[in-house]
Amino acid sequence: MVQEELQRKINSRTKPFGSLGKLEKLAFKIGTIQNSLTPELKYPTILVFAADHGIVEEGVSPCPKEITWQMVMNFVNGGAGINVFSKQHGIHLRVIDAGVDYDFPEGLDIENCKLARGTKNMLYEPAMSVELCRTAMEKGAMFVCQEYDRGSNIIGFGEMGIANTSSASLLLHKFSGIPLEECVGRGSGMDSAGVQHKFEVLKKVSEKYHPKTPLETLATFGGIEIAMICGAVLEAKKLNMVIVADGFISSSGFLAAYEMQPDVADNVIFSHQSNERGHKAMVEYMHGDPVLHLDLRLGEGTGVALAYPILQSALVFLNEMASFEEAHVYCVGGEQ
Amino acid sequence: MVQEELQRKINSRTKPFGSLGKLEKLAFKIGTIQNSLTPELKYPTILVFAADHGIVEEGVSPCPKEITWQMVMNFVNGGAGINVFSKQHGIHLRVIDAGVDYDFPEGLDIENCKLARGTKNMLYEPAMSVELCRTAMEKGAMFVCQEYDRGSNIIGFGEMGIANTSSASLLLHKFSGIPLEECVGRGSGMDSAGVQHKFEVLKKVSEKYHPKTPLETLATFGGIEIAMICGAVLEAKKLNMVIVADGFISSSGFLAAYEMQPDVADNVIFSHQSNERGHKAMVEYMHGDPVLHLDLRLGEGTGVALAYPILQSALVFLNEMASFEEAHVYCVGGEQ
Repeated sequence: MVQEELQRKINSRTKPFGSLGKLEKLAFKIGTIQNSLTPELKYPTILVFAADHGIVEEGVSPCPKEITWQMVMNFVNGGAGINVFSKQHGIHLRVIDAGVDYDFPEGLDIENCKLARGTKNMLYEPAMSVELCRTAMEKGAMFVCQEYDRGSNIIGFGEMGIANTSSASLLLHKFSGIPLEECVGRGSGMDSAGVQHKFEVLKKVSEKYHPKTPLETLATFGGIEIAMICGAVLEAKKLNMVIVADGFISSSGFLAAYEMQPDVADNVIFSHQSNERGHKAMVEYMHGDPVLHLDLRLGEGTGVALAYPILQSALVFLNEMASFEEAHVYCVGGEQ
Repeated sequence: MVQEELQRKINSRTKPFGSLGKLEKLAFKIGTIQNSLTPELKYPTILVFAADHGIVEEGVSPCPKEITWQMVMNFVNGGAGINVFSKQHGIHLRVIDAGVDYDFPEGLDIENCKLARGTKNMLYEPAMSVELCRTAMEKGAMFVCQEYDRGSNIIGFGEMGIANTSSASLLLHKFSGIPLEECVGRGSGMDSAGVQHKFEVLKKVSEKYHPKTPLETLATFGGIEIAMICGAVLEAKKLNMVIVADGFISSSGFLAAYEMQPDVADNVIFSHQSNERGHKAMVEYMHGDPVLHLDLRLGEGTGVALAYPILQSALVFLNEMASFEEAHVYCVGGEQ
């Protein structure tokens, strides 16, 4: 078994037993995924899926929905957080219009995959039909395939969509059974009264529908970008890639995939513990152990990019540190 | 005031207000240190100070003291954690023999600054004389000056020295008043009985001496490497560098400097929250907010190297992200 040999290799590096903490767990996990004692990360990629949300009409976000397309334009122009962090670490970045309610000019560096002009207002009807949801999942999978074919073995998913914490909150509540109030947070910056209003709207939505399957649940409460992430996660698992989650909304796509196929967790790394309410419980529900704790709540895949050098460090120690034997060092708790 | 303008610049980047969490605090801190709205990090450097400890004779470490020189040889050969992480991030690394009880062969890449062959056994006499301690501080300062003259404006300090958690525990207890039992941990991997024995030895040491000044306290309980770190921190503050602490032992050198001159804290960043007992309390005592939480307890300066890309990210966002105005984005909670 590679796992036994991996653990032996980790323990035999010149350091006190267990002293690289989470880096050791990451090295073990990535080595296990790749079935290798010398795992490597190739062509890291982040896909950012953008879409609008019908529920925005109910005042669940402090931002108007126009911010979605404006931020997509910002991605295209290289000015957003995800741009500068991806550039810092040489991560290939693709921006996908999954369903933004705006006609982008031709010729921009946006993948046009607009399946609708946003979701329906789920206070009145399901956010998506099951067909639309399934199509979104297939499209998400397609983008992953493309990156895999280019040689990538590590992929992360970000998102942009005003009001999409509402979808993430409902998905968490419905999938995990965690009380709704513990799943609803400030999003991009609601005050207490705003959060209370958001909670009341989402409570009505939650009580209105009782979908039976994970797919129906995702269609009813999700976003098009979240469905694409879900499909992308399932495909990346099929291709045995290392799959990296960002914050609350990105992770809700991972959650839907986890409900459909729990063994995706074997390939998933949570890049960070977001400051958005509900994310901690969501990650714990999937037995995740976030890499960073930086109080981020920006989305876009920024946590994925920021955590990337730490994942690299995990492999750097595994692959490049000397063993006790090689270094003629005897002890440092290495034999425990 | 640069601080007001800095905060305005941070808030005007295209992201929800406060959503980059600790990165925003880091950008603010480094901008404040450099009195600049476009701060930069130049020639990052890590100095690793190594020395032996007389208290090792009392069985306070699971490792024999020969590990100190063996690990220094490992540094020289590039096989240790600090080597591979420094290389990963292009950090200049220097290894300093501050007081190792071993004669290294000539011609190796070790700075020979051996002030003694380790400290005295503080169960019977003070670890260092005040004179030796002062000399160690001056030497530490000298190394910092050299790096500053080469153009470095960010420097971190690591250490190697079997039994040096004992010094760090006593320094924390004496400086902060935190009960000794809360300051004593597993070090490189003691079991419960070993920790109990270590505590009993350190209790005797603690009760034996009642030094009056921070310098006397550092001399009595410190290590030569810790005294060098203390002097290095004070000098780096004088030169207005960004100063990065590693784990429990490195931070104990920072603590001694903090006791001598509390405003060093203005320039100090704690790279991580170590898993070694006492480090959390030590950092909190200095009002620090660690960047990483990776359950590390390796020392050597590894946390400094691992956190470096996160510090860079803080400046990357500040310097490279578009403002709301530039990107024509209106809101995202940016006006709060």
